[in-house]
Order: sequence, then C-alpha cells, then structure tokens
Amino acid sequence: MAYPQNIFTNTTLPSPSFISRRREVIYANTLLYQLNVLKTTGRYDAFKLQWHQSYSDAPDVPPIPNHLFWDSDVAKWIEGACYFLQWKENPEIEAAIKELVDMIRAAQQPDGYLNIHFTVVEPEKRFSNLRDLHELYNAGHLIEGALAHSHHYQNDFLMEPILIYVDLLCRTFGPAPDQKHGYPGHPEIELALLRLYEKTKDPKHLALATYFIEERGNPKGQDGQHYYDVEAEARGDKENERPVYMPKPRSYWYQQAHEPIVDQQTIEGHSVRAMYLLTACADLLRVENTKRENLRTAVERLWTNMVDKKMYLTGGIGAQKQWEGFGIDYFLPSSTDEGGCYAETCAGIGVMMLAERLLQLDLNGKYADIMELCFYNAVMTGMSASGKQFTYVNQLASTDTDLSKRAEWFTCACCPPNVTRLLGYIGGYLWTFNNDEPDTLQVNVHMYSSAQLSIPVGNKVVELEQKSNWPWEGRVEFALRNASEIKSTIKLRIPSWADEWRFVPNAPDQKLEQGYLTLPPDWLKKNSSFVLEVPLKPRFVTPHPYTNQDILALARGPLIYCLEDIDNPWVTDHFKSLVLDPTSTIEETNVSAEEMGEPYVALAVNTIPSILEVGTELSPHIELSAIKQETGMTSDKLHFIPYALRDNRGGKGHMRVGIRKKR
Amino acid sequence: MAYPQNIFTNTTLPSPSFISRRREVIYANTLLYQLNVLKTTGRYDAFKLQWHQSYSDAPDVPPIPNHLFWDSDVAKWIEGACYFLQWKENPEIEAAIKELVDMIRAAQQPDGYLNIHFTVVEPEKRFSNLRDLHELYNAGHLIEGALAHSHHYQNDFLMEPILIYVDLLCRTFGPAPDQKHGYPGHPEIELALLRLYEKTKDPKHLALATYFIEERGNPKGQDGQHYYDVEAEARGDKENERPVYMPKPRSYWYQQAHEPIVDQQTIEGHSVRAMYLLTACADLLRVENTKRENLRTAVERLWTNMVDKKMYLTGGIGAQKQWEGFGIDYFLPSSTDEGGCYAETCAGIGVMMLAERLLQLDLNGKYADIMELCFYNAVMTGMSASGKQFTYVNQLASTDTDLSKRAEWFTCACCPPNVTRLLGYIGGYLWTFNNDEPDTLQVNVHMYSSAQLSIPVGNKVVELEQKSNWPWEGRVEFALRNASEIKSTIKLRIPSWADEWRFVPNAPDQKLEQGYLTLPPDWLKKNSSFVLEVPLKPRFVTPHPYTNQDILALARGPLIYCLEDIDNPWVTDHFKSLVLDPTSTIEETNVSAEEMGEPYVALAVNTIPSILEVGTELSPHIELSAIKQETGMTSDKLHFIPYALRDNRGGKGHMRVGIRKKR
Repeated sequence: MAYPQNIFTNTTLPSPSFISRRREVIYANTLLYQLNVLKTTGRYDAFKLQWHQSYSDAPDVPPIPNHLFWDSDVAKWIEGACYFLQWKENPEIEAAIKELVDMIRAAQQPDGYLNIHFTVVEPEKRFSNLRDLHELYNAGHLIEGALAHSHHYQNDFLMEPILIYVDLLCRTFGPAPDQKHGYPGHPEIELALLRLYEKTKDPKHLALATYFIEERGNPKGQDGQHYYDVEAEARGDKENERPVYMPKPRSYWYQQAHEPIVDQQTIEGHSVRAMYLLTACADLLRVENTKRENLRTAVERLWTNMVDKKMYLTGGIGAQKQWEGFGIDYFLPSSTDEGGCYAETCAGIGVMMLAERLLQLDLNGKYADIMELCFYNAVMTGMSASGKQFTYVNQLASTDTDLSKRAEWFTCACCPPNVTRLLGYIGGYLWTFNNDEPDTLQVNVHMYSSAQLSIPVGNKVVELEQKSNWPWEGRVEFALRNASEIKSTIKLRIPSWADEWRFVPNAPDQKLEQGYLTLPPDWLKKNSSFVLEVPLKPRFVTPHPYTNQDILALARGPLIYCLEDIDNPWVTDHFKSLVLDPTSTIEETNVSAEEMGEPYVALAVNTIPSILEVGTELSPHIELSAIKQETGMTSDKLHFIPYALRDNRGGKGHMRVGIRKKR
Repeated sequence: MAYPQNIFTNTTLPSPSFISRRREVIYANTLLYQLNVLKTTGRYDAFKLQWHQSYSDAPDVPPIPNHLFWDSDVAKWIEGACYFLQWKENPEIEAAIKELVDMIRAAQQPDGYLNIHFTVVEPEKRFSNLRDLHELYNAGHLIEGALAHSHHYQNDFLMEPILIYVDLLCRTFGPAPDQKHGYPGHPEIELALLRLYEKTKDPKHLALATYFIEERGNPKGQDGQHYYDVEAEARGDKENERPVYMPKPRSYWYQQAHEPIVDQQTIEGHSVRAMYLLTACADLLRVENTKRENLRTAVERLWTNMVDKKMYLTGGIGAQKQWEGFGIDYFLPSSTDEGGCYAETCAGIGVMMLAERLLQLDLNGKYADIMELCFYNAVMTGMSASGKQFTYVNQLASTDTDLSKRAEWFTCACCPPNVTRLLGYIGGYLWTFNNDEPDTLQVNVHMYSSAQLSIPVGNKVVELEQKSNWPWEGRVEFALRNASEIKSTIKLRIPSWADEWRFVPNAPDQKLEQGYLTLPPDWLKKNSSFVLEVPLKPRFVTPHPYTNQDILALARGPLIYCLEDIDNPWVTDHFKSLVLDPTSTIEETNVSAEEMGEPYVALAVNTIPSILEVGTELSPHIELSAIKQETGMTSDKLHFIPYALRDNRGGKGHMRVGIRKKR
C-alpha cells in the first residue's frame, strides 16, 4: 500500500529532463505567482472569516457562489507547496503556509466546522445542499493539504483542526438513524479520507469513506428516497428547478449518483468527479485487501468504457461543456464548432490518479500507457512554459470562439493549483516498489525520465537510477546500486505504442507480461547496468471510426502533436479545411527555443497542403464530385509541435491536433 | 396572393399516382382511424368541458400538461377532414365534424375565450404562460380549422365562435399600455391570422399577426424587460426553474424569441416553431406587398443557414431531442447513438410550408427542390402504407433504443393529423398560377404527378394536365386545354439534381431561369401537348464534410433510399459497421408489394458487403493499419428501398440511410 503523495520523496529528479524543467518553472515562478493570486483575489485572507465584496457577486454557474471553492484553492496550494518544499526550502512560501495554517486554525468553529462560505455567508445552510455546494469537496482538499503539511513539517498544526472537522463529519454522516445518509456531490473527500486512514489507522476514517462510496446513488437512501431528492425537497426546490449543469431534472448521473457505483455500466457525467470517485474506489479495494468483486468489476468496466469510447487522442476526457463531462459512447468532437470538446486539465490529472491506483491493483501496462499519455498531453498542455498561464479546457482544435490561448487564472480555479501539486509529487508516479521483506525488492518502472529512486531494504538503501532524455529520446540507461545482497526484481514497462524496442545486454526473457519486461534477481545480480531503447518514430494515429472523426493525428513516443498558426501562418480557419495525406513522409528537427522552456523535437510533414473545397449548390446533398481537395499553396510542409507546448510563442491561436484525412 | 389551402381545389389528382394512393389510404383508413383515436382518448368530447381523468396525469414534458394540445388535435383533424370532404363525401366524418363544431361553439366562454385546459383545469392561469403553454398555438389551429370548415361548407358555424375568440385576442395583445405585449411560445397563430386576414380583410387580424411577429424577441417589450421574463416573475418562477426542453435558464432561442427575428443570424431552437414562424414572416411579406427588407433578408438568411448547414439528406430538420430542434451548424448525426437525430415529421411539413411561401415570393427552384425533397422523404416516411401508423421523429439510422418503427399514436399527437391535412390540400403544392388578368395566365409547375389543374381565366376555364408515374418514372406528359385565346406562360421546374433532361418537342429556349424552363405564349399556342423527361438515375450523395458524416446515401430522383434488415437479414448492428464502395454499380428493380401500398423501384448495390473491423488494443489511439474492411459474407448485394416506404413489412427495425464510405 503506497500513495504517490508519500513515496515521491524516495525519488530525486536531477536536471535536465522534461519533468525537472517543469518542476523548476513551478518552483521558480508558479508557486509565488499563485500565492500572489490567492492574495490579490481575497482567497488568502478568506479564512479570517471577514466579508469579501465578491461574496455578493451573482454566480457564474448558478447556484454555485463563485467563492465556494476558495477553501480548496488555498488547500491545494498548501498541498503543492509542501511537496515542493521537500525538494527545496523557500522562506516566503513557508511564511505564507504558516500564516494560512494559523488562519485555518482560527477559522474553526466551536463544534469543529470549517468552511468559509457556510460560516461567513450562509451559516444556516450548512450541509443543506451536498449535491451542488462543494462543502465536502472542500473538506477533502483540506484533508489532503493537512496530509502534505504533516508529511513535510512532521507536526500537526494543520492536521489538528482538520481531524476535529473530520470528527464532526463522522458524526454527521453515516447509516445511523440520526445521521444524514448523504454523500458529496463532488467526490474528493473519499480519496482524502482513505489517505488519511492510511496515516491515522482510525477506523472512523475508513468507515466514512466506505459509507460515502457505498451509499452513493442509493435510490432509497434517505426516508425511502434518493438523498438528493430529500435534500431538494427540504430546500423547497421546485420540480423544474435545477442547476445549469443539469440538462434535465434529476440528472444525478452528473455526479455519478444516478445509481450505486457497482451498478453503473458506462462512465457518465462530470469527468473530474468521476475520476476522483473511481480513484477512491480503487483505494478502497486496496485498503481492504478483500475481494469486493462487484466494485472491482465496476471500476474496471468504467475504466474500459472511458478509454475505449470516451477518451480523446490526448488522454483528455469530457466532451460536453454543459456538465464538464462525458458524452455518449464515441462522442468525441475535436472542437466546440463540432459539438464540444472539454478535456479539462483536472480531469487529465484525475485519470493519472486512477491509472496509478489501478496499476497497484494490477500491474498492467494498459494503465501506465494512459497515465503517461495524460501526463504528457492532456495535463502538461494545461500550463505555459512560463508557469504563469493555464488552461481549464483543452480542445483538440481551436475555433473563433475558443482560441488556443491560456489564461492567467479562473474564477473556478481548480486546475492551476492541481497542476502545481501534481508536479510536486510526480516522482511518485514514475515507479512503484515493494520493500516489505527485509531482503527482497521489486521495482516496477512505469514512466521514464532522469530520476533516482532510493529504497530502504532491510538495513540497506538500494538505489535505482534511470538516465534519459525521455520523451524526446527513447534511450534509458539504468543502474542498480547497493543491491548485491538483495533479491531484486525490476519490471520495465514497454509502451504499447512501441512496435520495437532493444535491451542491452540481452534481456533474460523478451516476453512481456501485461506490458512489462521482467528482470529477475539472478540476472540483476550479474547485470547492475542495462539500457532500454525504445525507438521514437513519428506515427499517424486516429480515433475509433465510430467517433466519426476521420482524422489523422501525429504522435511520437507518448507525445501527441498539433499544428499552430505560428508555424503555418497561411491558416485562416483553424486548419478545419486542411486535408492530410497519410502516405506523406515525416521529418524530425531538434529545436531549441527559449520560450518553449526546453529543447524539443518538432515534426514536419512533407506535403503541399491540400484544402477541402465543397460545392454546396445541391445542399443538403453534396455530389461526391463536388468535394475537392485543392492544392496550390507555396508551402510544402506542415509544421507540427507537441500539443503540450502549444501557445508559448504568441500567434493567432489557431491550432488543431487531428487533421482531416485525405481521401 | 394564394394559399395552397385555398387553391388546392383547382387541382384534381386522378389515380394512380404516388400522391393519389396516399390520399386514398387517408380517406379510406386514416381519417376514421384518427377519429376513433380522438374519441377513445377523450379528445373528441373534451370541448364538452367535463373533467377527464387524464387531466390529473403527471406531464411527460413538464411543465406542459399532456392534454394541453387537445384543442389543436381536434382542430387539425377537422381541417384535414374538410379538405378531404371537398374530394369525396363521407357521412360519418361529416356527422363528427358537425358534432365537434357544436361542442366547440358551446365551449366558448361569455367573453369569447375558447380553450379546454384553461377553462376546465386552470382557469385562473389564462394567458399567464405564453412561453410554454400553447394557448395561442391552439387558437391558431382553431382558426385554420375554421377556415377549412368555412371553405368547404360555405357557412360560418365554426368561424363564428372563432372570430369572437380572435376579437378577444386582438383586445388582449398589442402595443397599447393596457394590452399584454406578449407573443406565443409556439408560433402558429401568426400564419393562421394572416390566412384569416386574406379571407376577412379585417385589419385587426393583420395587425395582431404583425404585432406577434414584430414584437417577438424584444428584449424590453414589457416594462423594460423581455416579456417571458416578466411572465416568469409574475408566476413566481425561481431563477433556476425552467422546462425540461430548456438546457439553460432563459434559453429563449428555443422558441426563436432570444432576439427580434430580423436580427437572428442562424436558425435555432425548436424546428417546428421555427418553420411556422418563418412561414408567417413570408406571408407577411406577401400580404403587405411592401419591402420590409430586413425581414426578407432575415427569412432568406435563416432559410439558407438551415438548408446548407442544418438539414439532413432527407430534408429532415432538427438534430437535438431535448429541444426538438436544431443543433449548431453542421451538427447532423444520423442516429441517437451518434449524438442525435430528430427530424420531426411536423418539421418536414413546416419546411414544405415555408418553401411554398418562398416560391411565391421568388420563383426559384431551390425552394421547390427542398419542398419536394421534404415531401417524398422527411414527411412521407411519417405514415405507414396502411395509414394507421405514424412517426414523430425520423432518425436516419436506427439504434437498439430507437428502432425504425412507427407508432399508433402519441401523447403529443401533432404529427399524425398534420400529415392528414397536408395530403388533404397537397394539390395546392404542385403548382401556382396567376390568373389576375382576364386574358393572361401563368402556371408555375413545381412538382410532378398525375394531376389536372382547372383555372378560370376571364370567362374560360383553362386546363393543364400532367400525366406521370413520378417519382418512379421521370416522364411527364402535359396537355394544355381551352387556352387558345389566352396568353399562357408555363414554367416547369427542372430539379437541380437532374444532370440531364429532355423536352419534346424542342423547348423554345433551353436556358433555365432560377431552375425553371419557360414556355412562352407563342410557343404554347402551337404546342398544347409536350413532354418533359427527367432521367431518374440512381446516384450517391453525401452530406457536407463538416458534418463529419463520411457517408454515402443512395438517391433516385427526389427519393432517398435506405437499407432495412428485412431485405438484408444478416445485419445485427443497424448497418453501423457496414462500408460501401462508391464505385459499386447499382441496379433497379420494379417491385410490386401489396404491403407497401404501391409498386416501387427498389435499388440494389452490387457489392459483397464489407464490414469495418477495428483493433482497439491501443485505445484511445487506433493505428491506421488496425482499421480493416473485411468481407467474407455470402451476400453479393445490398438491397435498398425508399426511406418513405420503410417499416411496412415487419422486420427487426434495423435501418440506415447513410452508409459509411469505403476508404
């Protein structure tokens, strides 16, 4: 049982690498930039429980007050900052954390309650709208902030008030007749409670997480009715009254509460909520070490439905803006002018969390493939090279109304600090290990980079080092140190997109087991250094034909590429009418551009761009002969860059990942 | 100025023809079948103003009571029945009309008010929710029913109470300070009032129609606010309270009331409402004979947006089920499992109405092409060969949840009587004429069939006959009679899909003017008989590539074809994975099958069916090589039938119009 938020401290991430450069940017720029935003927007001081003028603002997304998430914005920043402080000290950040913790402690109510909005603005409405009002979501992030704080500072200044608050929650929610049979509209506290339980071993914490998971979607949970119906009735909601994100009355699939989780057949609703919830489910399966076959099956079924039918080429999830979530199977338009594309940054982070947990349940490269895909594309595209601009949604193609541009902040600011905290503990995603026995070690390597893992085994500290310029180059050099007396097994993930790979010296057994190459103890005793080489060849990929997206996307290794107008300045329509010949050759160029934050591999497709021209005289019918693909441009190349690096060099904001395939 | 509802009596429709067979079925089966449904469901007696048990039912579509449309169901049946009675007497139908008219007269309130729901169920809510509650829509259908009744019976038994009701409406709505500045959520009364005005010449009737059209969407119409906002406030609606068909609060685009009509740039919302509204706008343009350039431009802009970007291959409109209407530009999925497809039968009828009105404003074959396309596909698919089963929605492909099956009736039963009344006056769509001068006649022939037009010109009655087995055969024989002393001009529409056509004897001028071939008086004097021959060759058509529907549909003349499982029994997936090679040859067969109601031309594509097979190992990426098109079936043909004739022979309900194009 290990959480990446705990074991990341076993990993150091030497420079230079893709990951280390991103971390340096966050340490140098993002943390302080975000701290400044917290201060200037009122979030920083909000736990002082004074009235802020913005509390009177009309909500952007009724019925949710804009400031409702402020608790979580602060908590996530504390969490991320504590991870980075484990790497490098920073007095300014430390001072801010101290002040914030003091304010949080002081904000706790006599009965343990701890929430800005429901203390300052609407104290009478506490726990009256779990469905919409993020009260327990905020509590979850406070718990996670406290865990990171306690892990770093080895004290309980933040943990103490949080535990008192959790006690209140444990008294308030549960199966007893005098308890509320409710559960959060936005899951998050479940995974936080399970992480808390790992630390406290307090059965109350496990019980509450389990209750929230098991009770969710119960059609008769409260007084023979769905809890959210009872809540709504108590609030006096009218039959046709519903939040803007619910297309129809009782759209409880929005928060994965339309039926018990074990009964859900397809992944539905708000994508971040779905990922946080399933992550907690996977954690529960691990914690209990019992079978819970229905839950295991459900999690796997929903994962598979998502990956096969509801995930974009970039690893992004969520096509529908109205509910920030999943469409029906295979509904994956590239852009808002095709019907939607959301792919929220936080949702990508959520997929990584779930994939990591599933990997620990079942070491299968299919999870790691998706984890890596999300990291390098759906998530890393969420932050600029400067570390000061962010995306919330990540369309695969821009439109006039949704340009490929990052923003400095958001009213609902979940994504920016989420990227921060992810990069803070990213070392915990690279590998997992088992050192439970004093003379045995197993390391499973999921992602490649330059990194060093130090693991205490018995009275030794074994080191595994990898050196690589991944994802730009596919060569990874390994060295295992101080393991001569240990029975070590190493499993290396071979990405499923790799159609060939080399291993030097010869691997003892080339056969892969669920996508992993096994290096057994005997072999490792003789070979403490070895090299994995995965040739990174550019390749065209396409989504499932049932998406009705007859497009080509360019990939190289785990990276998905895109076209930008800055490299292809002739574009006027977001590359919507461009057609791409899949037989074109592709060339690679190593580019060093300071504004990108790092040297990268650009790709160029050798082709004179062809543009679709359509005769519409017979609309709504088009004769086949009226669809032409015209060339005539002077350009003879299409220039692609990694999707993660888009919008770092100015331009008009025209961008596209998937290009219409030439017929 | 002519309405097809008035001039259809100039046309007789001899048997056999596609149209005459449909009319015979309606006369023989549908009218009495529908009368029986009206009786058994409570609609027939509803104007007796007694309580009916179903008035307590929970609404299928809150907040609209299921019985709210009953007035219109009755009125449309009366209207359709009166049209058919002009062709053939029927004592049973006449007795029913008489009884219904008596009940309607007796139902009128002392102040002239006339509505079932707001007299029996919620009298206190009269005119309190124009936005949602169809009060004026019902009034519009009563007016149209009265017009048909008065036209046939040449008395005012029904017209009398209706005129009294209209007087009440004219007092209630308008620009005066003591009048309500409202307009119907569901347009219909506008076009009805304009037709009424043509008969009464009462300026009040024109003024109210004009007011409803001009006031619509006024952001400050009532007390400086949008009328629907003021209404909602007066009802005590809460901020987030909205009907199920409104995805967001204040989605007034649903009823084309988000801004004044002249400002609307794209066609939005509920498709039937949009068509009825624009039909009235076109009528207003004709009635006033003034320029109103803004309105003319707006109607043309919205028509073009619809035809080019929001219309299905079948002429169907409406992709989104939630609001029974238009999606964004080019959002035209074939089926619910692709994101939607609605194409309501009534909407197709509405397109025909609008196209006919536009043809009278501007004789352009582009309108007639769409009118004919809708008739033979989007509309005619709405009724079974028996005349006793109907569709409301008309997907272009079936799915497991939406089989290609007609139903016997609907709670919201707008479509079945709408088809009835359309076929009642269909003769009025075939051609328009101008006989204003005593010695001059112009006839514009828009659609072909076997039909005879009789037009008084001066003291003569000129006859124009066409004889044709259209749409199965493209030969049309014309005879002009009794016109020797008349300056006659005939314009014949040459369908835009015809890549060739022949005219015997030689036409005086082969050049087409906006899609019409002109036969001038001199030539007609010498040639009173002539033949137009339009070869009906099967052809493949496809929607615009921006729809992301890379499909082929088979067309022949104005007919769109489809595949059904009864002819291709190997199908298990609604032909979703089938791929079709556009270079395949097509063969025609004349089929005589009693259950289809008429002999028809079936098409077969000579190809061994290929099925898409997709390797999903790398989801969400698919390698190009993992998409295969496998054959191996024993069948060597794909059998197509006209979409209008689907679901007449049993089967599983698997059907598809657009087949994935083979790469």
